Amino acid sequence: MTTETGRRSLTAIVLAAGMGTRMRSKRPKVLHAIAGRSLLGHVLTALREAGADRIAVVAEPGRDDVAREAQAMAPGARLYPQAERLGTAHAVLAAQAALAEPVDDVVVAFGDTPLITGETLRRLRAPLAEGAAVAVLAFEAADPTGYGRVLTEGRRVLAIREHKDATEAERAVRLCNAGLMALSGAQALALLARIGNANAAGEYYLPDAVALAVADGLAVAVVPVAEAEAQGVNDRAQLAVAEAEIQARLRRAALVGGATLIAPETVFFSADTVLGQDVVVEPHVVFGPGVTVGDDCVIHAFSHLEGARLAAGVSIGPYARLRPGAVLEAGARIGNFVEVKNATLRAGAKANHLTYLGDAEIGAGANVGAGTITCNYDGVNKHRTTIGAGAFIGSNSALVAPVRIGDGAYVATGSVITDDVPDDALAIARGRQAVKAGWAEPKRAAMRAEKDARSKKT
Amino acid sequence: MTTETGRRSLTAIVLAAGMGTRMRSKRPKVLHAIAGRSLLGHVLTALREAGADRIAVVAEPGRDDVAREAQAMAPGARLYPQAERLGTAHAVLAAQAALAEPVDDVVVAFGDTPLITGETLRRLRAPLAEGAAVAVLAFEAADPTGYGRVLTEGRRVLAIREHKDATEAERAVRLCNAGLMALSGAQALALLARIGNANAAGEYYLPDAVALAVADGLAVAVVPVAEAEAQGVNDRAQLAVAEAEIQARLRRAALVGGATLIAPETVFFSADTVLGQDVVVEPHVVFGPGVTVGDDCVIHAFSHLEGARLAAGVSIGPYARLRPGAVLEAGARIGNFVEVKNATLRAGAKANHLTYLGDAEIGAGANVGAGTITCNYDGVNKHRTTIGAGAFIGSNSALVAPVRIGDGAYVATGSVITDDVPDDALAIARGRQAVKAGWAEPKRAAMRAEKDARSKKT
Amino acid sequence: MTTETGRRSLTAIVLAAGMGTRMRSKRPKVLHAIAGRSLLGHVLTALREAGADRIAVVAEPGRDDVAREAQAMAPGARLYPQAERLGTAHAVLAAQAALAEPVDDVVVAFGDTPLITGETLRRLRAPLAEGAAVAVLAFEAADPTGYGRVLTEGRRVLAIREHKDATEAERAVRLCNAGLMALSGAQALALLARIGNANAAGEYYLPDAVALAVADGLAVAVVPVAEAEAQGVNDRAQLAVAEAEIQARLRRAALVGGATLIAPETVFFSADTVLGQDVVVEPHVVFGPGVTVGDDCVIHAFSHLEGARLAAGVSIGPYARLRPGAVLEAGARIGNFVEVKNATLRAGAKANHLTYLGDAEIGAGANVGAGTITCNYDGVNKHRTTIGAGAFIGSNSALVAPVRIGDGAYVATGSVITDDVPDDALAIARGRQAVKAGWAEPKRAAMRAEKDARSKKT
Repeated sequence: MTTETGRRSLTAIVLAAGMGTRMRSKRPKVLHAIAGRSLLGHVLTALREAGADRIAVVAEPGRDDVAREAQAMAPGARLYPQAERLGTAHAVLAAQAALAEPVDDVVVAFGDTPLITGETLRRLRAPLAEGAAVAVLAFEAADPTGYGRVLTEGRRVLAIREHKDATEAERAVRLCNAGLMALSGAQALALLARIGNANAAGEYYLPDAVALAVADGLAVAVVPVAEAEAQGVNDRAQLAVAEAEIQARLRRAALVGGATLIAPETVFFSADTVLGQDVVVEPHVVFGPGVTVGDDCVIHAFSHLEGARLAAGVSIGPYARLRPGAVLEAGARIGNFVEVKNATLRAGAKANHLTYLGDAEIGAGANVGAGTITCNYDGVNKHRTTIGAGAFIGSNSALVAPVRIGDGAYVATGSVITDDVPDDALAIARGRQAVKAGWAEPKRAAMRAEKDARSKKT
Repeated sequence: MTTETGRRSLTAIVLAAGMGTRMRSKRPKVLHAIAGRSLLGHVLTALREAGADRIAVVAEPGRDDVAREAQAMAPGARLYPQAERLGTAHAVLAAQAALAEPVDDVVVAFGDTPLITGETLRRLRAPLAEGAAVAVLAFEAADPTGYGRVLTEGRRVLAIREHKDATEAERAVRLCNAGLMALSGAQALALLARIGNANAAGEYYLPDAVALAVADGLAVAVVPVAEAEAQGVNDRAQLAVAEAEIQARLRRAALVGGATLIAPETVFFSADTVLGQDVVVEPHVVFGPGVTVGDDCVIHAFSHLEGARLAAGVSIGPYARLRPGAVLEAGARIGNFVEVKNATLRAGAKANHLTYLGDAEIGAGANVGAGTITCNYDGVNKHRTTIGAGAFIGSNSALVAPVRIGDGAYVATGSVITDDVPDDALAIARGRQAVKAGWAEPKRAAMRAEKDARSKKT
Repeated sequence: MTTETGRRSLTAIVLAAGMGTRMRSKRPKVLHAIAGRSLLGHVLTALREAGADRIAVVAEPGRDDVAREAQAMAPGARLYPQAERLGTAHAVLAAQAALAEPVDDVVVAFGDTPLITGETLRRLRAPLAEGAAVAVLAFEAADPTGYGRVLTEGRRVLAIREHKDATEAERAVRLCNAGLMALSGAQALALLARIGNANAAGEYYLPDAVALAVADGLAVAVVPVAEAEAQGVNDRAQLAVAEAEIQARLRRAALVGGATLIAPETVFFSADTVLGQDVVVEPHVVFGPGVTVGDDCVIHAFSHLEGARLAAGVSIGPYARLRPGAVLEAGARIGNFVEVKNATLRAGAKANHLTYLGDAEIGAGANVGAGTITCNYDGVNKHRTTIGAGAFIGSNSALVAPVRIGDGAYVATGSVITDDVPDDALAIARGRQAVKAGWAEPKRAAMRAEKDARSKKT
């Protein structure tokens, strides 16, 4: 079971059934997101970081959405349907088939405790390598009321005592069971299978594995974790608290990595955001999933990025909106009220004001004037616009795709371009200016008369 | 006096005079706003929730703005001018005429304590139904220095002792008078009329009603309130603190109601905002007054809503600006840098980029291209634009109202539409494209020469 | 040395060498910014407020960027290169030439403690006027571990004891050396020159001046400062903390000055922002350097201002972006998704939607329609646009600079204006509307066929 390199093998079971009625949502609880990633996705990522070779997700039967998310975040993960709700131990055994295959370590995690890190899961596994049959994760609770207390002697666990069964002295114990458990692969199935349901609720409780192991004389270890990290998500307020905790981690990491966040508390990252060195992020910026920012970029205030790749020295915003497929090469510049979707700006290209660039390629050093629109959608299909290197697009122009503006070409202000423009040519498509002298005064009089007439009516 | 249904009747007196010099404002203090509602409006709303039948607002003489706000927030409320500033009891008696009419309960509230809830006012009234003549609202102060102490025996009040008159032992009392008072309608006027001004300031103090009642052998009750809820607003810093407290309440209510607020601390509600279930609100969103959001809507980051009604499944933003009269039917979509004012989007209609829709109706499934402007204003009058179901408005078009685009009609990119377009027709209004080959190079040379000439001059 | 008016003269030494490796930045630490001003700029400003007549900045040799910043923030400041890093006292002596000139007081400050105020520096100087030879700034540390302890008898300092040299009893002292020091001009150079480097690191330590002074029987005073104010900036997290502290001060000052900040924690000021009375700032607003806002202005949410001057009664935003040179006269109005750069709007002028105004002058009462673009840039040079008083610019117009629109003139919707428009004339430059009846249905069929063909290919 131990792999050739001496690394211990790991099977992870994630309990992910349960809609979470306190969420008051039509969506399964584990698919709610923090930092642009589902709760389940956070747990699966931590398990992969902790070295999971095989991942079993126990979910409500027929939840294709949960299955898709599990596959996306942990390719190869298998889903096991949980038909009945008979307690956590019963839920783990829904994945009995996964446990039947030989493995060194088993970890049981929960789809709704997204703050647990891979590092913590590695620590949770560690006692197994030293001979423990079971390791439980536990935290010092500020207020332990209601939690199961972990009764210990040194690092060995004697028992987990439910709050309602605890003596006064045991209730004074503040070390509480976080729920997550690591089990030796050799003993896991046997222990789990022996858990009974002789209790008031008639349920099979995972923590009962501890008592069985202790009774067998097996070693049970306790591994500490911070209370905040152990918190589960049961309602929207807890979801917001978990989001805040993850954001705090991401902000700290960005600062340590050498980015300036002028107001970290107003910047929202996704779990996968990558920032280079000497990046400056001004206040009020939102990073959706899939963003990479190169060294020395400046992200001005009120910018919104998702699925975008910025090379070094790029400046965007304020009020820049980069959507998936936005690629900005070195020194490119996107200004205010500009949207970029599935478009590449080559080195030094600029679009500074009130512009929509969709399904487009903008050549190096090209200048896209204010109010330019790439008309990529005809109501049914999408088409591409190509702008050549060094081209100059006059303001308020519309480029009707598919269309190509040549290198060094000019588009005159206010033009609607429907045909390709050769390199270094000028394209112009607009009316000639005419002037009607003295037109304004009688017009204003007429409009005022209309206004008077309107107000008399009412 | 007790109404037929057994409900006790209530007259409320709101003391709302005083400019609040520490506000450093030309506006009366009670008209400053939190969560899109004036301080006075918050107090009047709480009083109505507590069952007030008659509301008397004591204000500076001649404040039409205060009168208008009182009428708006509590139709039927009457204003009583306070000519002189001779203390709170004297101010209450400015509304003597309101107190002269028979009533079960009287509540005295203050226009500058906007955090008091209707529930608290109901609790304040409750002792009157059990025979108390007076009930005072009191809080445990973290630092009681300066406050009047409420001296009690059980739930009965013995006296209210001003800080300066208190003994060392009395100063150790942390229970402080919040100012609000409920009085039995039978005794109120008599008690208030007997309050004297034999004190250093020569003022008539409302709390003196307690001593008079106790001396008469009447029961005086104390009703507890949290210190934060009892806080008044005397300067802009306290105004900001009160805003933060109200926002915290509104955010909690939204989360409990089943909305996801990714970053609650960056979302600002109005007191009357209504959110459906499974609504997602991204970071950095501002709700002005009068917004209703249906189930399953997504409000993307940096959106600003006011007076808007969103049906189910609507998506707006990022950077959507909905102004009063914006009505979005099911599945409609407003994208980035789009402003909607007094306009209806029927089911599934879309306006995704850089658009202004004012005084307009957009038919079901219509697609409004990027950069579209409804030209509703001619400098004097406003006119309406109608876009038919399934119509397609090409990018950078201007629709000069009054104008109607037919069902299924197309407007070609870059057109200025001044005349109605029939159903299923194409309207086109723009210049033809012309190309001048080789134009760019000499032009660039000329511009560079101009630049050189300019720089030589300086 | 004492100036004629009796004011004491002051030479300030600022230690500003050091890249701050923990910043992980290519930029020198003292040039990182908070509230739109470099760390060095904050220190120089405080020194000027404290009355510094002569400022010496000790910097790495050859740092032109530091020299430029010093000149910008304290004209006349002189730079002294610090060739070697041999301790703080050695660094001060790099500016020996500045100290050689007769002066009453000397203050040594640090380029990376930007939170120290001018008021604190004045307090630090005060003991010198009363005969002290040295005054040290000290704070009560929440956790003093690692700091040098200030051992005192009343207000007199006995010694500064480094943490590692301190006895158990001395370690219990929480009064810690903040580093800043004031020295009598008469003794400064002599004391500093006598500091030795007989210590483990072989460095010359500035705090050793205290022991030398005490040994000479000179008076050494301690001046208290809040711990937060004494904090230095050594990494990006501390930079963010310092930014937060400065923002908190700026917000408090704005509130005290009579502005309403609905959500102070979401508003970011620059150190030089000036707000009038009864200004309302909505949530999520960013003030870059150089902004002045007159009385009664409303800054709506999501606005971004830099180098802009607003007269009284101006309203901007939401989503207004004012760039350097934006001048808004009384009652002017900038609406959503509007950018203004180097442009003046005269009294009552309006640009409410989706507009770019660059290098322009807009006359009083003029109305700039939605989607208007001033085309100020031809790819090489910038040109100016002038719009007359009372002019009306129709929506989606482009004004190709240099160009002048006359007083009271109209520009028709969708026009590209290349030639001047006389007063009260109408200018129109666009295509005529044509309609092709029944065009839409076959077009839709063709597009659907294309879509089918595309999807078959893939």
